Order: sequence, then C-alpha cells, then structure tokens
Amino acid sequence: MSHKHYMALALKLAAKAKGNTSPNPMVGCVILKRNKIVGQGYHKKAGEAHAEAIALVEAGKKAKDSTLYVNLEPCSHWGRTPPCTEAIVSAGVREVIIGCDDPNPKVSGYQELKFRGIKTKIGILDEECKKLNECYLKWISTGMPFVVVKAAMSLDGRIATKTGDSRYITGKDALKFVHQLRSEVDAVMVGINTILRDDPQLTVRLVKGEEPVKIVLDSRLRIPLRAKVLGDAAKVIIATTSKAPKAKMNKLLHMGVQVLSIKSDKGRVDVKELLSELGRREITSIMVEGGATLNSEILRKALADKLLMFYAPSLIGKGTEVIGDLGITSLNKSIKLRDMSTRKIGKDILIEAYV
Amino acid sequence: MSHKHYMALALKLAAKAKGNTSPNPMVGCVILKRNKIVGQGYHKKAGEAHAEAIALVEAGKKAKDSTLYVNLEPCSHWGRTPPCTEAIVSAGVREVIIGCDDPNPKVSGYQELKFRGIKTKIGILDEECKKLNECYLKWISTGMPFVVVKAAMSLDGRIATKTGDSRYITGKDALKFVHQLRSEVDAVMVGINTILRDDPQLTVRLVKGEEPVKIVLDSRLRIPLRAKVLGDAAKVIIATTSKAPKAKMNKLLHMGVQVLSIKSDKGRVDVKELLSELGRREITSIMVEGGATLNSEILRKALADKLLMFYAPSLIGKGTEVIGDLGITSLNKSIKLRDMSTRKIGKDILIEAYV
Repeated sequence: MSHKHYMALALKLAAKAKGNTSPNPMVGCVILKRNKIVGQGYHKKAGEAHAEAIALVEAGKKAKDSTLYVNLEPCSHWGRTPPCTEAIVSAGVREVIIGCDDPNPKVSGYQELKFRGIKTKIGILDEECKKLNECYLKWISTGMPFVVVKAAMSLDGRIATKTGDSRYITGKDALKFVHQLRSEVDAVMVGINTILRDDPQLTVRLVKGEEPVKIVLDSRLRIPLRAKVLGDAAKVIIATTSKAPKAKMNKLLHMGVQVLSIKSDKGRVDVKELLSELGRREITSIMVEGGATLNSEILRKALADKLLMFYAPSLIGKGTEVIGDLGITSLNKSIKLRDMSTRKIGKDILIEAYV
Repeated sequence: MSHKHYMALALKLAAKAKGNTSPNPMVGCVILKRNKIVGQGYHKKAGEAHAEAIALVEAGKKAKDSTLYVNLEPCSHWGRTPPCTEAIVSAGVREVIIGCDDPNPKVSGYQELKFRGIKTKIGILDEECKKLNECYLKWISTGMPFVVVKAAMSLDGRIATKTGDSRYITGKDALKFVHQLRSEVDAVMVGINTILRDDPQLTVRLVKGEEPVKIVLDSRLRIPLRAKVLGDAAKVIIATTSKAPKAKMNKLLHMGVQVLSIKSDKGRVDVKELLSELGRREITSIMVEGGATLNSEILRKALADKLLMFYAPSLIGKGTEVIGDLGITSLNKSIKLRDMSTRKIGKDILIEAYV
C-alpha cells in the first residue's frame, strides 16, 4: 500500500468531523507499523484532543518506529492542547507523512520534526488535503472567512419570477443538500430584503447537524422582531450601521441577538468590514444565501471564494436574476472561475466553481 | 449475446450517417446467423439503399433462417426504394428484431412481417432508438421540424455584456461542438438582429461535415446584401412578411437566396407558420442560434423540443439574458424541462434538456 492510500484514510477520518471543528481544521491521523494500522484518530471538536494525540494513545507502545500519516501539518505550539510534535517525538515515531502545510505562522511542525531527527515528507494528496480544509486555510492565512455564494435558479439564471415567486425553484434533494451545507459552515448570510420578502428560518431541518450562525445585513434595523430567523436569537448576528435606531437595537440586544455596528458604504453595511469583523470572531466559513443585490456586492468586491449554483430543469424568462450589475462591459473583464465541476442532485444540477 | 447487444450494434451503424440521411431516418441493420454476423449495413443518404437491403445483399444466401436487427421499423411501401419487408421475406429471414416503430403512416413493416409469418419483436433499446431519430420521428408524426434552442452563456445566464460583447463567452471546444451540431441538423436559424449585430457565417468550419441551410427571420428584409451568411446564397432561406420591400426581395432572389413570405404576427414573422412551411420543405431539424428575442418567442409558443445550454466558467452580471419575457409570473407556470443531463465540453459545461 502506498503513502497515498493511508493519506486518503487519514482524510476520510478527518472528514468525519465536518462542520464540528471550527475554528480548527479537520485532521485525521493513521499510524502504521509493519503494514498494519496500530492507531488512528481524528479531531472531533475545537478544544478536544488532536488527531495525532488520539492515534498515538491508541497505538501505545506500538508507536515506536512507526509511520504516522496526518493530512495537515502537526502543531508545534501550546494552544488549547499541548503540541503534537512533542507527543510524536516522545512516542518514538520513525517517519511522519504530512498532507499539506498549515499556513498558521504558529504551526511549524514539519520543520520542528525534521529538526528533531524524524524522517518527514510533505505534500501527499496535497490538493485533496487543501480542499478539505479550504475554509480553515483561507481564514488562518488571511483572517477573512471563506465565502460560498449559493443560489438556486432556473436554467436561464432566474431566482424568482417577475412577481417574486421563488419557493421552491429547485427540488427536495437540493434543499436537503443545502441544509447539509448549512450544518457544515460556521454561518449563513442574507440581506434584510430576503428576510422581509421570504422570512426564512435558515436552520438545519432536513438533516442532522449543527445550526450555523445566522447573519443578517440590515443597515437600518428594519428586521421585524417576529422574523423567523430570530427564533434562535443567540445564533443571530445582525450587522447594521450608525443609522440604526437605538430603541430597535436595544430591543434586539434584549432578545439576545448580537448587533454589530459596521461602517457603511453608500448607506449599506460595508461587507468587507463585516467579513473582517466576523473573521476576528472566529467565523471561518460563510454561505451567502442572499439575492441578486448581496450576491453582486460580494462578487464585485471580490469577497467570494466559491460558487454553488443549483440549476432546476425549468425556464422562467423575465424575472429576478441571480446576479445584478457587476459593472462589467467587456467579456475580458468578466469574473473568471476555475475548477468548475458539475453533478446531479435529485432532478437538479449543481455547478461548483471557485472564484 | 443478447438482443440488446446486436441492437446497440445496429444503432452504432445507423449513427455513422448522422447529418446525412435527412429527411430519412438513420437506420442500421445487423443480420445474425448461428451467433455470427453475416451481414450489416446502414442507410447512407436519402435516395440510396436502405440499411436492410445492404445487409441482406452482404448476407446473400446466409440470410436464410437468420435473425435481422434493425433500429427502426422497416418500410413496407414503395418510396424512393422498394419496400424492405419484401426483401426480408424473400431472403428467408426467420426473425426480425425492431428497435422502435416508425410513426410514418405509410410504414407498417412490423404488422406486414407478422402477417407474412415472420417472427418479430419490437421495442428493444426503444429509448435509445427513439433518441437517435428524435428529429425524424417528430417531423414524420407532426410535419414540424425538431427545434433545438442552443445558447452559450455565463453561469449567471448572460449571453452578452450590457454593451453587447458576446464573442466568445464559451471556449474553443464548445465552438467546435456547435459546428459539429450544425453539420448534423438540416438548418440553423437566427433573427435579423443577430445578423446585424454579429454578422455570423453560421457555417461548419471547425469540423468536416455538411453545411446546414441558414434561415434568417427578417420581417422587413433589413439584411445587408453583403452579410456573411449570404456567402453561400443557395443555402439561405430568408423568412419575411408582406412588409418586405419588393426591390430588396428581387435583389436577394437574384443572388439565389430563397425568400419566403410568411404571415406576420404583431409585425414579425409568425414562427409557427414558418416552421410548418419549413417542415413541408423537408427540413426535419433546426438549431436556433438566436438571441433572447427569438429564444423567448419559440419557447413562449411551445415550439422548442430541446435546449442545449453551454455555461462558461464566468460571471457577467447585468447584460443580455439568454431568454426574455415568457409571460410567467408564478413558478408553477414555469416551463418544465425533462431528461436534463450535463457534461463538460472543454472548460465549459453543457446542459441538455427536453421541453
């Protein structure tokens, strides 16, 4: 069996905690001795044991002279848990195979292990490892959350008819998939118009999973106090501006909602400022479930990382477009996407692409 | 080996003549005796020998007591060639396996063969057989051409920027694929605005293949006499109305262009009338390469059979939409599509769906 085989296993273990490790990455670890797996583990939750530590405990004395596989560079610093490099060295591991490096400047496990005389290799299934932790890697290296723009539309790019009818363009499987995605990101985000028009819950209902934080951009605090999204107030952040009426703000705060006053950009919440602030609050990933206005703003300001576009087998014609004005006049100025892929989700088609 | 295996072979033979058999269907034939193929053939071109006839000639005396596979019901009437049922019976074929029936009322080979005492079976790979000849089957049963609406757009459904820049949204492979498609249909169709704006040639350049007839909807004959599409005048049909200036019409006729005067619908060429007329002229398949106006009109009037939507890995935002007003206000009135499938063509994605 090759290095890739065991790295794939480590990745599979890591992915078990999808949606639960934030702001930590997903990490899995496999310990191999004489072609037999003697220990394995994965990081379940921030604050709990690291994958390497769990696998080493399971391996016990068999860790001596073993090969350890881990999809992300092991930590070498004292954080919420002791450094993994120490545990690896003292267990007597002979070789450490790492998937991809951790851009966190506090993490330099690869160098540390090398320095301590352990045989190391890095970059096995590098691409897959980076993809699994794409949110963490962006956040740790830039401080900004990884932003996914999600939209459901007809084949002709409409998210609602001209009278605003939008529920539901795509089918049940796509909806379930979106609930799954919600459970895997730290937060979902909408503009106030989506709240006023659709009154969505933005919860995880069709699958089991963690509830995301709900973020509403609402420059003048027009949100009704009985909006469904406020049902679980502790999980709501409303981003507003200095124009927010104080009384309404107090009512919301009293309900347990967090209200952030963000600098404004042409009267609206400055999305870039907001994302920086959310990053500081350890929100590493956000799924934008807004309409054309929010989508356009985020794309125009180059704040999106990934698109998830669901296409239903239907045509609507004149109606609400998925993306509004981007200020693009010539084709060579269009926003270019990469790594575009496609698959069927029930009766709909999902196109995924990176910005 | 099963019936399906040999039917698939017959289909493969039939497809070799893609783009060349119109207004006839594509037909392939395989003759099997004691598990060995003793004869095969396909219909190459209207007016030439039918697949069954070719395969029977190849089989010669071995056709006696054989099994004959053919993807479409054999003809039983005197047309451009003698009836295939006669040839099958006189060759002494024991069993005939037919893919799907031919709705042409003049064709009743299945009944005829049964009546003549030959063992027959129909409906093997029925779906695949019907798909291969979808254009012929629609035309023969309704008199109307099979209409494919093709469009190339950004992921947000734009076929041009707000200033009209549209060349080329999709990549080289998609363009080549479109040229391939042009060589497989009887005609391509655009509105006069596409001619005035883009001056396209609408020819088959990137692949080898037959040139389609070029159809231009031009209610007032605004087409410039030097338009590129007129390069091969004999292959051009201009559909106009009674509003067409006689002098211009004479000039065009003089160039060798066919000009059809069609009744008008709100000042424009009535597309349904035009399609009926084209059907009468044995045009069995048309690929519409127009803009939002023509696309919308054809869809609104329920004249389209299939959509081919190419999505490029790009976003344009505000710009020309692929489909204009369809008069749809509520989602349950949206145009529902079926059998939607997707695949990558170079860096673009193609979504195919039936109306």
